[in-house]
Amino acid sequence: MEKRVYIQDVATRDGFQIESTFVPTEDKIALIDRLSTSGLAKIEVTSFTSPKAIPNLRDAEDVMRGIRRVPGVEYTVLVPNVKGCERALGCGVDEINLVMSASDTHGLANLRMTPDASLEQFKTIIAATQGTDVFINASLSTTFGCPFEGVVPEDRVYQLIQRLIDIGVQGVTLCDTTGMADPAQVARISTGALSRWPDTVFTAHFHNTRGMGLANAVAALHAGIDRFDASLGGLGGCPYAPGASGNICTEDLVHMFQRMGLETGVDLDALLDASGLLPALIGHDVPSAILKAGKSDRRYPKPKWMTEVAG
Amino acid sequence: MEKRVYIQDVATRDGFQIESTFVPTEDKIALIDRLSTSGLAKIEVTSFTSPKAIPNLRDAEDVMRGIRRVPGVEYTVLVPNVKGCERALGCGVDEINLVMSASDTHGLANLRMTPDASLEQFKTIIAATQGTDVFINASLSTTFGCPFEGVVPEDRVYQLIQRLIDIGVQGVTLCDTTGMADPAQVARISTGALSRWPDTVFTAHFHNTRGMGLANAVAALHAGIDRFDASLGGLGGCPYAPGASGNICTEDLVHMFQRMGLETGVDLDALLDASGLLPALIGHDVPSAILKAGKSDRRYPKPKWMTEVAG
Repeated sequence: MEKRVYIQDVATRDGFQIESTFVPTEDKIALIDRLSTSGLAKIEVTSFTSPKAIPNLRDAEDVMRGIRRVPGVEYTVLVPNVKGCERALGCGVDEINLVMSASDTHGLANLRMTPDASLEQFKTIIAATQGTDVFINASLSTTFGCPFEGVVPEDRVYQLIQRLIDIGVQGVTLCDTTGMADPAQVARISTGALSRWPDTVFTAHFHNTRGMGLANAVAALHAGIDRFDASLGGLGGCPYAPGASGNICTEDLVHMFQRMGLETGVDLDALLDASGLLPALIGHDVPSAILKAGKSDRRYPKPKWMTEVAG
Repeated sequence: MEKRVYIQDVATRDGFQIESTFVPTEDKIALIDRLSTSGLAKIEVTSFTSPKAIPNLRDAEDVMRGIRRVPGVEYTVLVPNVKGCERALGCGVDEINLVMSASDTHGLANLRMTPDASLEQFKTIIAATQGTDVFINASLSTTFGCPFEGVVPEDRVYQLIQRLIDIGVQGVTLCDTTGMADPAQVARISTGALSRWPDTVFTAHFHNTRGMGLANAVAALHAGIDRFDASLGGLGGCPYAPGASGNICTEDLVHMFQRMGLETGVDLDALLDASGLLPALIGHDVPSAILKAGKSDRRYPKPKWMTEVAG
């Protein structure tokens, strides 16, 4: 039997939040509805942050309530605090995604909170989910390095994961927030996490900032990770690494895994159709390689001189 | 001890040949002289083809005779026929690189020769090297797939390698000419080749057309390949896959391998300085990720509000 991998799209959250244009609510809903029927395992729909902090996602409720939810697909949202959690629960999300940094400086810069403060905040959020069956995921930013501090000690990463699990987190996303990870490091940390916490659901989240995104995904796969965040079209990025490319591209990841003989559950053509809509929605080209080059099984016409009949 | 890998740059041949502008001879020489002192193992300097076929490389002799050769660096050139071989030998090259396709249609389209015809031609070229100690390398295009025919049977690849070795070829480059390879296939074919011919020098040659270039390099590395072609800035491409990106980028590959703890022998900063000259030489931006994003150890300044003293 083929090995099964689970692909989770974050474009409408991680991608749209940093675009210079607001994508209209009905366009967001239409795009997510397409993604819902393409075979993805999970969709990070939006973020229940303050509309002032992230104006692009100020329509979180309308989007979450407007989409057509497909059974079997998990719908997750980013939740920064108790208020956001209550808004998310009000929309009946399947999962809330808490975000913290592994490094103090990135935590302060991105969230205005140290990891310690984030963990305290998470306790209050998790308390607010009591009595629901919502799944609690936490994304650990800068797991593979901090753009301000550099290397984050692996022991510190493992200590933070332990503390997350201790307060009731069920899934942990290992995030290479600014594309600093390399395949050897990914293999080491993925193996370390999976062997320490076999009952926790781990997700790998890579950026392609330095061209290593898909190489890191393969390294995580070989270490035993089977859940991957990726972003349609390769949207996303990081405010602290201007000009750098964004999250690994969902269709590029699915294409590679399918070529490797893995079962993704995804209809790649449907995904490419959806990705093809992005440039019109956001007003610029996207980094997707497969959208430009076509799939590996694409056939090119022979040069004309080879097919011309000698006259 | 760290594992040693050997990085071979092909930008001045594989890259420059398809650019729309002719890079002046003295600029080619200056660029190669920089590459020679950066710690690369091999440089594919130019191609001794007909000036009519590849006008951009019409200065092959002048370039090959003009460069400052650094001891320890191998200088190789592409040679399509006996005449090209004699011109190359006249310049005292260390290696000649013969090119053939694994598939009939690509061979006819690209070289106007089937693999059988190429092998016959190679015999005459190799005969012309008798009495010299020039190294004979052969690049096997479309090893991982043909843009016209699709999958190339692996048995066919192995048969062609055997026939190359039988006629005196000492090194074989496994080429993913149009970026169709995936990491699982690369692992399989690399292992297959290394186990069958342990005394042959194998090189892996990947394109990043579908984003898998560095993932494929890691797959080849893990299979035991230690020589890699790459192109400064990520120049190169394929006339049959318009718009697609080119060879894997030398500085991106070196950066990844160094981060993984491998010994490359390369001064990455020198390589980045050289790559930074390319846009002015060829008149457009290059795909290099590290040139844009900086190395993983790059540190960003903290946001201003974090460093401002409360007044």
